[in-house]
Amino acid sequence: MSKELVAKPLVKNIYQGIRDEVENMDRKPVLSIVQVGEDPASEYYINSLKKKGGKCSIEVRIESFELQTGADQIIKTIHKLNKDTSVDAIMIQKPLPAHIDDFEVTLQIDPEKDVDGLHPLNVGRLVLGRDGFVPATPAAVLELIKFYEIRTEGKHVVIVGRSDIVGKPLVNLFLHKNETGNATVTVCHSRTNDLAGITKQADILVAAIGKAFFIKKEQVKSGAIIIDVGINEYKENEKVRYVGDVDFEDCYDTVSKITPVPGGIGSITTAMLLNNVLIANKTEKKNKKVLT
Amino acid sequence: MSKELVAKPLVKNIYQGIRDEVENMDRKPVLSIVQVGEDPASEYYINSLKKKGGKCSIEVRIESFELQTGADQIIKTIHKLNKDTSVDAIMIQKPLPAHIDDFEVTLQIDPEKDVDGLHPLNVGRLVLGRDGFVPATPAAVLELIKFYEIRTEGKHVVIVGRSDIVGKPLVNLFLHKNETGNATVTVCHSRTNDLAGITKQADILVAAIGKAFFIKKEQVKSGAIIIDVGINEYKENEKVRYVGDVDFEDCYDTVSKITPVPGGIGSITTAMLLNNVLIANKTEKKNKKVLT
Repeated sequence: MSKELVAKPLVKNIYQGIRDEVENMDRKPVLSIVQVGEDPASEYYINSLKKKGGKCSIEVRIESFELQTGADQIIKTIHKLNKDTSVDAIMIQKPLPAHIDDFEVTLQIDPEKDVDGLHPLNVGRLVLGRDGFVPATPAAVLELIKFYEIRTEGKHVVIVGRSDIVGKPLVNLFLHKNETGNATVTVCHSRTNDLAGITKQADILVAAIGKAFFIKKEQVKSGAIIIDVGINEYKENEKVRYVGDVDFEDCYDTVSKITPVPGGIGSITTAMLLNNVLIANKTEKKNKKVLT
Repeated sequence: MSKELVAKPLVKNIYQGIRDEVENMDRKPVLSIVQVGEDPASEYYINSLKKKGGKCSIEVRIESFELQTGADQIIKTIHKLNKDTSVDAIMIQKPLPAHIDDFEVTLQIDPEKDVDGLHPLNVGRLVLGRDGFVPATPAAVLELIKFYEIRTEGKHVVIVGRSDIVGKPLVNLFLHKNETGNATVTVCHSRTNDLAGITKQADILVAAIGKAFFIKKEQVKSGAIIIDVGINEYKENEKVRYVGDVDFEDCYDTVSKITPVPGGIGSITTAMLLNNVLIANKTEKKNKKVLT
C-alpha cells in the first residue's frame, strides 16, 4: 500500500454525493463570489470552482469589481446578495485591496450564506461543535482523516501555523468529542521555541505555515502521519511549480503516511467549499438581518 | 518572594478601577441574573456577586424561577431583559434543570449583554481577537498573567481540560499575537495518552479539569508556573473545604509559582465578571434583534 494519502478517490466521492443530491432539487445551488481586482491565484481558484461547480450542477456567479472600488459598494453588493433568495452562498475572494477592511466586509455576510465560515458567528459555532460552516481547508483535513480512517483519539496532533482560516479552526475541531476529535492538540508557530522538539512528538503533523519545504525529516517522528496544507509557488530552473510546506521527498522514508502537493488537501478544499454551498442550499435562512 | 500568585492585590485593583469608572456615570451598571431552581453553589456565587457588586456600585438583580419552569418562560424573560435599556448585562445561572436546553437559551441573549461570553458570536469574536466578552474564568487567568508579568511568548502552555467555558477559550487566547499570547499551546484531557509526558513539558500549566488534587509533582516540570482553575468540594474529617485541581502542597517545592485555592483564580473570576458588566454598560447596543 502506498504511503500517499491522495485526494482523488475521496474527491470523487464528494462530487458524486453533491451530484446525487442536486439532481433531486427543484432549484440548483448558487454560489456568488465577490471579486475585487484581479490576481492570478484568485483567477485560478475561481475558474476551478466554476469548472468543478459546473460538473455537479452548482452555479458559480461572479460579482467583479475594479481594484479601486470602495468598501461601501462592496457592502451594498453583499446586502443585495443576502436578500437575493436565488443566492445560497456568498464568498469574498481574498486578498481584498488594502483600503478595504476584511473583517468589516465579512461581518456583512448573512452567516447562513457564509460558506467560507469566516463570520464570527460561524467561528463560534465551530468551536462549540454546533451547525454552521466549517472553512473549506479544515473541512478538507477532516474529510481526509475520515476517508483514510486515521484514528485521532488520544493521538498527539501537532499543528504548525495559527491562522484564522486553518490553524485555529483545526485546533478546535481536533478537540471535539467525535470520530475526528478527542486528540491531544499542540499548536506551534513562528514564535515557538524548539519547534523540532514539538513537531517530533506528533503522531499526526499538520503543516499550515505557508513556507515551501519548511518541514524536513529531522522534525518528524518515525511513523508519523503528515497532512500538508501548504500550497506554495516554487521556482526551479525558470519553471514555477506548486509545493507544500513539507519537504515530501526528504520526509517520505520517515513517515507512515503523507499527503502529496498537488493532489492532496488542495483538491479536497475545492470540493468541500462546493459541499458547503450544498449545505447552504439546504439550510433554512433564519437570519435575514445583518449581524455585526 | 513568595511562590504564591495570590489574587488579593490584583482583585483590589480591578474593583478600584470599576469604582473609579462607575463614579462618573449617570446611570449605574445593572446585571440581571436568571436563576432557575436553587443550588448551594449557585447561591454562593450569586450572593458573592451581589456583595462585590454592591461595593463597586454595580446593581445585581435576580430573576428567580422555580425548578419546573418551562424553557418558554425563561426565554420570554430573556427577551424582556434584552429590550430593557436599564439592564446592561444578562447572566443565566448554571446548571439549568435538565428539561431546559442550555444552548437554546444562550442563543436568545443579546450578544452585547452576554457577559458570560457564551453566545457563539462572542465565542467567535474571542477566537478572532475582536471586541466581545471573554468568559470570566479565562479573563481571570489572563489578568493574573498580566499582573504578575508572566511571559507567555514562546513558552509552552499546557492546558488540562477542554471545556467550552475554560479550556477552549484559553487555547485560543494564548494563541493571540499579544502580551498574554504568542505561546505554544497544548490541550490535554481525559482521552490524552501519557498525560504526565505532556504536562511535564509545561512552562505554564493550567489545570482546569475539575478533579481535586489531580495534578501531582510527578506531572510537573521543575520551575514551572502553575495556574489552578479548579474549585472542588473536598471532605476531610467531616469538614468540607474547597481545593484546586492541583495538589498544592505536593507541588509547592517543584514549581516556581503557583496560584492558591481559595484566594486564586476564583476570586479574580468574580471581579472579571463584574468588569464585563462595566464593559457591557459602555458598549453601544448594536444588536437589538435576537440572533440565533
